[in-house]
Amino acid sequence: MAKITSFKYTIFLSCSSILNLFFVSLYLHSRMEQSWTKNAAAEAEAVAGISCSGHGRAFLDGSIVDGKHVCECDACYGGSDCSEFLPGCVADADSGDPMFLEPFWLKHAASSVIVLPGWHRMSYEFNDGSLISKELETQIRKLHAVIGNAVTDGRFIIFGAGATQLLHAAVHALSTNDPSSPSRVVASTPYYPVYREQTEFFNSEDYKFKGDTSLYNNERDSQGNFIELVTSPNNPDGQLKKAVLQGPSVRTIHDLAYYWPHYTPIPAPADEDLMIFTLSKLTGHGGSRFGWAIIKDETVYQRMLIYISLSTYGVPRETQLRVLKLLKVALEREGKEMFDFGYKTMRNRWRKLSETMSMSKRFSIQELEPKRCSFHKKVRGPSPAFAWLKCEREEDNDCNVVLNSVNVTGRDGSLFGAESRFVRLSLVKCEDDFDLLLKRMQMLVSEENDSTKIMPQNKTTVNLSSPRSNAIYNWDHVTSKYHLEELTTHIQDQATMPAY
Amino acid sequence: MAKITSFKYTIFLSCSSILNLFFVSLYLHSRMEQSWTKNAAAEAEAVAGISCSGHGRAFLDGSIVDGKHVCECDACYGGSDCSEFLPGCVADADSGDPMFLEPFWLKHAASSVIVLPGWHRMSYEFNDGSLISKELETQIRKLHAVIGNAVTDGRFIIFGAGATQLLHAAVHALSTNDPSSPSRVVASTPYYPVYREQTEFFNSEDYKFKGDTSLYNNERDSQGNFIELVTSPNNPDGQLKKAVLQGPSVRTIHDLAYYWPHYTPIPAPADEDLMIFTLSKLTGHGGSRFGWAIIKDETVYQRMLIYISLSTYGVPRETQLRVLKLLKVALEREGKEMFDFGYKTMRNRWRKLSETMSMSKRFSIQELEPKRCSFHKKVRGPSPAFAWLKCEREEDNDCNVVLNSVNVTGRDGSLFGAESRFVRLSLVKCEDDFDLLLKRMQMLVSEENDSTKIMPQNKTTVNLSSPRSNAIYNWDHVTSKYHLEELTTHIQDQATMPAY
Repeated sequence: MAKITSFKYTIFLSCSSILNLFFVSLYLHSRMEQSWTKNAAAEAEAVAGISCSGHGRAFLDGSIVDGKHVCECDACYGGSDCSEFLPGCVADADSGDPMFLEPFWLKHAASSVIVLPGWHRMSYEFNDGSLISKELETQIRKLHAVIGNAVTDGRFIIFGAGATQLLHAAVHALSTNDPSSPSRVVASTPYYPVYREQTEFFNSEDYKFKGDTSLYNNERDSQGNFIELVTSPNNPDGQLKKAVLQGPSVRTIHDLAYYWPHYTPIPAPADEDLMIFTLSKLTGHGGSRFGWAIIKDETVYQRMLIYISLSTYGVPRETQLRVLKLLKVALEREGKEMFDFGYKTMRNRWRKLSETMSMSKRFSIQELEPKRCSFHKKVRGPSPAFAWLKCEREEDNDCNVVLNSVNVTGRDGSLFGAESRFVRLSLVKCEDDFDLLLKRMQMLVSEENDSTKIMPQNKTTVNLSSPRSNAIYNWDHVTSKYHLEELTTHIQDQATMPAY
Repeated sequence: MAKITSFKYTIFLSCSSILNLFFVSLYLHSRMEQSWTKNAAAEAEAVAGISCSGHGRAFLDGSIVDGKHVCECDACYGGSDCSEFLPGCVADADSGDPMFLEPFWLKHAASSVIVLPGWHRMSYEFNDGSLISKELETQIRKLHAVIGNAVTDGRFIIFGAGATQLLHAAVHALSTNDPSSPSRVVASTPYYPVYREQTEFFNSEDYKFKGDTSLYNNERDSQGNFIELVTSPNNPDGQLKKAVLQGPSVRTIHDLAYYWPHYTPIPAPADEDLMIFTLSKLTGHGGSRFGWAIIKDETVYQRMLIYISLSTYGVPRETQLRVLKLLKVALEREGKEMFDFGYKTMRNRWRKLSETMSMSKRFSIQELEPKRCSFHKKVRGPSPAFAWLKCEREEDNDCNVVLNSVNVTGRDGSLFGAESRFVRLSLVKCEDDFDLLLKRMQMLVSEENDSTKIMPQNKTTVNLSSPRSNAIYNWDHVTSKYHLEELTTHIQDQATMPAY
């Protein structure tokens, strides 16, 4: 009996010892598995794990205090963990910094992280002598095919440091080489201020900024060479646009930075001579300085290549690697997740702001029609990146001054070639920024309504003297027009919206 | 007795089971430890592990064939694992692509890798509204202090897309805003071709390229505003240079891309009004497109800031994070390891090429004096980035054509404002490229010596008709001058040189 017991014990002990050895080897193997990436990964995870109360973030290259990375807080938050709201803080709606997409990337941390060795692509050129990653070019073509917003077949693609660099490269490439008759660069008011600023600042002999397109929209004035910048949807007002000027001496550049389902219904794939896109407005990575142009004509493409080459010698290889990874994540499930998140976030913000502004007679915002979207395969309402706010009262000719009274600031309309009566309000910043903007705008509208209640005689005066009465009507009209569609999707959203 | 045995077994079994539990928990903990970075790290390690026979490399964003990343081979190698030498291949010594530093980064894989989350610094701006990382700026100041090649105290620092962007930003910032009298941009021949190419291509009203500085080096011709580009050590010939023009209407830009111990002795820290440096020539990361300018005058700094802002809106945040990491590694052990590797590699290449060229009468290369280096704390010999090759025979007025006969190509001297009798040969490319260049040059020189042996009557003719006889003397002279120092350090190197 003792022998049997002893035998049993020996068996158990042997099994247990074998298991011991197995687990030791498994553990050692798992330790060795990731050798040279281990410390960097651990550091990244540690920094990502620092809590900043949802109002900030710690970064790998952020400040270090007492040997620890510290939180960088959103604009109106402070304290070591960003938990303190700063009440007197300005709601800054100036910049079109699309931080509204950050929650998507926080949720997709595992699929969007890259591990970049020190020796990654050190060379000036890729192996084929070019400055662009063929894999990334292929991914961009696939992106446009899936989203259906641009034709890329048989077109050339070039990369640049955001739309910023590509816009000027395109103007340069399309200009005449004839200083006696420099090309006239024009854009329809209201236009993105950088068009004018770049052209004036670089002061080339070959092209000059000449203001609003409408000044040249008849034969008499349209002599000479023109470069028309067409922004669709337009920055600042979100309208889908077509080129205005026609003829053999007109070249067009289509700035399609916002032509994504986040910001607009996509009626059909764009198929223009020269189209510019930017990562900033697509995935929210403004800091990555990455954009691309899709070009029909080989000569124009070659001239833009020289421009990029002499200006910066291409886009950093680490950026190209990162963009490749980001676009792969953006296209997971045929883009459904990222573009749905983008669209729903922007639509909800627009809806909230519209509701507030519909109660005002002092302010109006642009009217945007619902349209069929080929990506969403249905008629859908607007979700623009910006509100193009107008101060309707005659005396409010500097609208930003009015906004400043409640600690709000936007971008002055005069920068867009319009009046200072207009202000562009950015709706694409982070949740904290938008919430504060909305709260302050509600305050402003509520002050207006309170004062009209106290002084009812003013109400009639404002209504009669202002074109706002029609705008209000239009707004209500538009609201009712797509109310049913919005309502249906709203109910669906409650069920499907991921918890970002 | 049986009881005691049974008790012992129970003790052993319990211990073994506890150990099992301990190892299981250790294993599970190590698996969970790196959660969201794990797959990316494993992918990076797998790609890094692909063998390309030491003549190529697989990259994360490289082509994928049959689901696997494939090798990208060095210029003259082929086959799926880059093991096949392509005999007819051209030894391309045209580009100054500093791939000679790649082995350093391969050796320092663990310390130089970065793990970059998808949500890293998405915003257009840093938290302080700027476009540059303060941590990186601090690291750059530290770098110059340690290496002793530039004064940064009380100076402004700006980042750009390599020296390429900063050179033109600086020309723009220093130019007059007066189209009736545009600034004259000049450089001493032989000069870096991009100076001319950029200024002509962008065709600003505010400045024009006006060629060689020496044309304006007297009072009569030096009316008007000048921007002198000073390259030290010079590209192509490696000479340390000073500004030539003087006076209140002269502005200078010091292009110090090569002012690192790799390429030149550092006599003293540079302390110029506007100095430009680039990561490419410092760490070898040309593909990262990163450079910086150190500026004394605040107005000039502000103008350059606007240039960068309107041209590209800053340098990608992923690049800034990567550069920060690379510079930290470069400065380990007070920079000793990277700069020693860089210097010794370049010095050995120069020595080998010099030895070969000293046997030629048909070709000469530039003469460089040994100098005291404050970084190495001793007098040291030259280690330039380029050989500035001259074809001495009268009939060889296109030197590249002569080189092409043995499948070598360099950069034509006429691009540098010199004669085509000169060719710039790059010595900074990867080991494979340099080895092939050296072999082909040895072949060329050996052909020359063979033919002079067969036709001794020619020897006298060439010797008499060519200024090369003196050059040869100078070369021998220089060689003997620093032979002792070189010999001593050579013996030391054999003991201390790490196995890159």
